Amino acid sequence: MALRIRDLVARDIRFPTSRQDDGSDALNRGDYSATYVVLETSEGLSGHGLTFTNGRGNEIVVAAARALAPLVVGRELCDITRDMRGFYHSLAQDAQLRWLGPEKGILHMATGAVVNAVWDLWARREGKPLWKLLVDLTPQQLVDCIDFMWITDALTPQEAVALLTAQEAGKAAREAEMREKGFPAYTTSAGWLGYSDDKVRRLCEEAVAAGWTHLKMKVGKDLDQNVRRASLIREILGPKGTLMMDANQCWDVPEAIEQMKALARFDPWWIEEPTSPDDVLGHAAIARAIAPLKVATGEACHNRVIFKQLLQAQAISFCQVDSCRVGGVNEVLSIILMAAKFGVPVCPHAGGVGLCEYVQHLSIFDYIAVSGCLENRVCEYVDHLHEHFVDPVRIVNGRYAAPTQPGYSIEMRPASIEEYEFPKGAAWRR
Amino acid sequence: MALRIRDLVARDIRFPTSRQDDGSDALNRGDYSATYVVLETSEGLSGHGLTFTNGRGNEIVVAAARALAPLVVGRELCDITRDMRGFYHSLAQDAQLRWLGPEKGILHMATGAVVNAVWDLWARREGKPLWKLLVDLTPQQLVDCIDFMWITDALTPQEAVALLTAQEAGKAAREAEMREKGFPAYTTSAGWLGYSDDKVRRLCEEAVAAGWTHLKMKVGKDLDQNVRRASLIREILGPKGTLMMDANQCWDVPEAIEQMKALARFDPWWIEEPTSPDDVLGHAAIARAIAPLKVATGEACHNRVIFKQLLQAQAISFCQVDSCRVGGVNEVLSIILMAAKFGVPVCPHAGGVGLCEYVQHLSIFDYIAVSGCLENRVCEYVDHLHEHFVDPVRIVNGRYAAPTQPGYSIEMRPASIEEYEFPKGAAWRR
Repeated sequence: MALRIRDLVARDIRFPTSRQDDGSDALNRGDYSATYVVLETSEGLSGHGLTFTNGRGNEIVVAAARALAPLVVGRELCDITRDMRGFYHSLAQDAQLRWLGPEKGILHMATGAVVNAVWDLWARREGKPLWKLLVDLTPQQLVDCIDFMWITDALTPQEAVALLTAQEAGKAAREAEMREKGFPAYTTSAGWLGYSDDKVRRLCEEAVAAGWTHLKMKVGKDLDQNVRRASLIREILGPKGTLMMDANQCWDVPEAIEQMKALARFDPWWIEEPTSPDDVLGHAAIARAIAPLKVATGEACHNRVIFKQLLQAQAISFCQVDSCRVGGVNEVLSIILMAAKFGVPVCPHAGGVGLCEYVQHLSIFDYIAVSGCLENRVCEYVDHLHEHFVDPVRIVNGRYAAPTQPGYSIEMRPASIEEYEFPKGAAWRR
Repeated sequence: MALRIRDLVARDIRFPTSRQDDGSDALNRGDYSATYVVLETSEGLSGHGLTFTNGRGNEIVVAAARALAPLVVGRELCDITRDMRGFYHSLAQDAQLRWLGPEKGILHMATGAVVNAVWDLWARREGKPLWKLLVDLTPQQLVDCIDFMWITDALTPQEAVALLTAQEAGKAAREAEMREKGFPAYTTSAGWLGYSDDKVRRLCEEAVAAGWTHLKMKVGKDLDQNVRRASLIREILGPKGTLMMDANQCWDVPEAIEQMKALARFDPWWIEEPTSPDDVLGHAAIARAIAPLKVATGEACHNRVIFKQLLQAQAISFCQVDSCRVGGVNEVLSIILMAAKFGVPVCPHAGGVGLCEYVQHLSIFDYIAVSGCLENRVCEYVDHLHEHFVDPVRIVNGRYAAPTQPGYSIEMRPASIEEYEFPKGAAWRR
């Protein structure tokens, strides 16, 4: 059965989260939002994708998704899936649109939404959750989905096939393990910067009581406040719990080094986003200066070329790729494979809206088919807004349960779309 | 007299240049376009700015410029100019919009248009061309326009003031020299990749006859074609002429090294954009491998953090900053100053539409107030579309004549706006 994409519908969906300071950190304070893309086909089946934004400006990303429609609408799904590398490249390197990137910022985020919608459609067509579709592809088929432009100095297609082939033997056992136990998660819900100390204390106590062993706190420009918060959370967590810190880009390089030397006594597992996401050399300088403390970054790193360099420069000990800031599943695959080659664990960024639904598939695939290892690997979890999805994440014993429904788990409930569409939905008319 | 910004009007202006393959290179083939911003004031004076794009997707940048309007409209010019650093930061680091960058891609290009429109308005208000406004600011005033976020490991405000102060003595003489002779230019009009060999030959012969001593050619993936073109142009230019090569990002790192080793016999002065504009380490690897050949890049480098790293890594011998891909004059100032500290000449990117009108101001300011030196400094010139500007560039003896009219020279003629506005203008209705 041919499946022709006959329309691309992009919607501006916003949740008024800033009213409670949910998601507040050193530099960001927003309304969790999504540029939500539906690819409608001639046969009734539809593909869903989104990219996460932080409120204002979401309408620009919607405009960008619509600008990509002529590159997708009218195409047969089987023609796309037969050459996923070519499909990705046709969006990412369009001879006119590429000036607006290349492969970065708003246009690339919109590309991520559209590309992910195609993967969702493909997975539905196959009747598999996205992670299982990926796991069942051969090494060569997976590698054929990747655009190696600009990364062959770090990873060649041949090396990628070899990495995947080396893990073939244990795949069935790891798949069974994932179906039974799920993938380990950690939580960021407790430590938002805009919350009061009392609220942070209560949330941390609840998290520890609920069995969470890893907590992440936000840090900012004010060292005294950072010390007070770290002390409070470490006390609740106890010496054996794992504490992560997240600066959300707010420091310059010398400042990051100074802050982390002062915060080292709280034994953080990593410092996340200590400075600009573009600053490969800066992250490397910080990593050298604060060792054995470790550096993590990725949620704002815009494409595979940045990740390539972070790995080449030994700038990061944890790779926190975002599922839709980069150009969708195709580009994530290249980043997961480069991280594997360089021996750096992938701990994807999540939170916002829809990111948890996405990344569970990526982490489960990574474990089964690429890394074969859970050591130092946790997938971020934030307990916001899951109720708006048709197939929301399920956390069981601090782990993401493996999704079982076909697709990429990102379809939103029609009632949520209606209520939160900006600016006409009921949530915004009040 | 108070000058309140009462409206921001953003327009989608496109010129159908792709019909003649003007501007074609290895990866880009477009319709030279502009997101054109006018800041209207209560007193009749208006500020003009644009960012250049390559056709499709210009409507997204227009949407981005409109998203910035609430941060500008209603403000007094004198309040903005009193704290230009804070003004820039308020646009570049808005707590919600910044998720769409930060400081990269479509939103940052729109920021460049809006910020430049403010500088145009300020210069008009002062009755000076932009370069002269800049030259007349004190070192401290100039430095107070710069957002040093993320660059203090390379340049501190104190170092920047010292660099500027050291050049104060010779400024008057250099200003007189610029007014008399102008700033040296080179031309890219001859070597577009989509032109036939015959057309390239004719254009190069015309350029040499017109007195141009520096010519730039486009190179691509096909080494044989690159060799044939280089041979043809070098023959016309003679051994003493200066030949630049521009790959427009089309190579991977190993490929760039291989190509340039083969093209070295044509004695290129630089290889421009050999690979991804994000690839600091890649550019550094290429530079080491092909020395003494030199690497240039910048037109697609999206902010000061990328330039900082290119300089720190000794990846470039020429800094080709774009006047409106980065966040306007404020950010260009930081890049010019970092380049001065690292001893790398700034040869700004131009061409497209409006870029020549912009960069003449930047190069003239750089010479008078920052570098004090013309060695290895040329400013790109392309002979397209100048007729659409109220105060177009004037090339005299292969040099940009110093602009004399107040402002940033970027105001478009009303008739051109009407004819080329997309999609309703006459040029697009035909």
